[in-house]
Amino acid sequence: MSGVLHIVGVGPGDPELVTLRAARILGRAPSYAFFAKRGRVGHAVTIATPHLNPAAEALRFEYPYTTELSVEDARYAGGMGAFYDDCAERLAGRLSAGEEVALLCEGDPFLYGSAMYLFDRLRGRFAVEVTPGITAMSGCWSRAAAPMVHGDDVLSVLPATMPEAELAEALQRCDAAVVMKLGRNLPKLRAVLERTGLLPRAIYAERGTMPGEVVMKLAERDDSPAPYFALVLIPGRQGVR
Amino acid sequence: MSGVLHIVGVGPGDPELVTLRAARILGRAPSYAFFAKRGRVGHAVTIATPHLNPAAEALRFEYPYTTELSVEDARYAGGMGAFYDDCAERLAGRLSAGEEVALLCEGDPFLYGSAMYLFDRLRGRFAVEVTPGITAMSGCWSRAAAPMVHGDDVLSVLPATMPEAELAEALQRCDAAVVMKLGRNLPKLRAVLERTGLLPRAIYAERGTMPGEVVMKLAERDDSPAPYFALVLIPGRQGVR
Repeated sequence: MSGVLHIVGVGPGDPELVTLRAARILGRAPSYAFFAKRGRVGHAVTIATPHLNPAAEALRFEYPYTTELSVEDARYAGGMGAFYDDCAERLAGRLSAGEEVALLCEGDPFLYGSAMYLFDRLRGRFAVEVTPGITAMSGCWSRAAAPMVHGDDVLSVLPATMPEAELAEALQRCDAAVVMKLGRNLPKLRAVLERTGLLPRAIYAERGTMPGEVVMKLAERDDSPAPYFALVLIPGRQGVR
Repeated sequence: MSGVLHIVGVGPGDPELVTLRAARILGRAPSYAFFAKRGRVGHAVTIATPHLNPAAEALRFEYPYTTELSVEDARYAGGMGAFYDDCAERLAGRLSAGEEVALLCEGDPFLYGSAMYLFDRLRGRFAVEVTPGITAMSGCWSRAAAPMVHGDDVLSVLPATMPEAELAEALQRCDAAVVMKLGRNLPKLRAVLERTGLLPRAIYAERGTMPGEVVMKLAERDDSPAPYFALVLIPGRQGVR
């Protein structure tokens, strides 16, 4: 009898924003796994810690690259593929032995989560249960007190890594938007928002629902590099009725 | 001293998918308010019931129209505006008396939630705290075991009420999509998905995470009218690494 892999969304940051289901699974799982950058504790495990079974064993999956290899580098995809293969095999070892494992995931597992790469590798071989989580964007727009989409509004979720012209086009076509993966793309995004007249509506959010949270008008923030997980919210039409 | 209005997202349907924060607020609030259609119990209150303070007082906000007046009818916007004004005044009465009130909201309050119309009316006058919730779409893609967006994929959330040509254009421009508000628009959406080659990827989801859940390939579902809250998922590129 193989064990079950639970892919558990732990939400945007505030440990109280995990679901009752996530807390139940984390509280009883005999082992848990999580991704982290080299030299960092890891966001997902930080959020989950108050809820974990204190006797549970940890599997740490440390990303092979942080900034020393660009996503565009030909070696990146191969290196990441080998890394995910290895993580999947470590999980498979536990699952084959009949153990239940919780794989922690910030936000929601199926919205830009690394856990999807392990899901793709293990779904055919083992039982996998997915527990949805509050997304980073929901956490941020709640903290920003910014109603996002009403009625028939179209919402787009876009990466700031898009080329400038495409980003401008995409932003003009939707009613509301969330722009992810800011990092060093803030000056480009600001230029696009100025040109399209959207800057006054744009809200900058960093570490939403966590200690050190920053939520402010983008127009009032400087262009210094943003953390990779910072995002910009552009709420749709306001006060419609 | 005025009371605090808590706008509480109760998630997609499974009562175990509320957050610890939502459960804490619901367990102690002396009164709660919820929207419901005439003759129906109301989704949000059904989800919240196991978590409510048993002594709490209920405020039921019953929509004035269900299907007897079309959204396009000139009287609709005015009637709904008066309805939301009245709901806001009922809450204001409690809040002015120093009472704490929890306003229940399916999914996430700021993503297509009626609670936004009350938030807009009350935010300047009272303290309002928003608790994010698991969205219906997260609940559905978790149950469908469908990873939605990887890497730099663009996700669009669109209403099926869009004109056919616009819907086709919008679907072709994004990598992944969620189409909301199906109702009687299923034949139109199916035609668009066939024409754009997206039908094989499309997943139909109804009552995700709830009793009576239906999750299936859209290609295998007939064109009979879908519930208003059913949705179609079009996951982005799969198995990329």
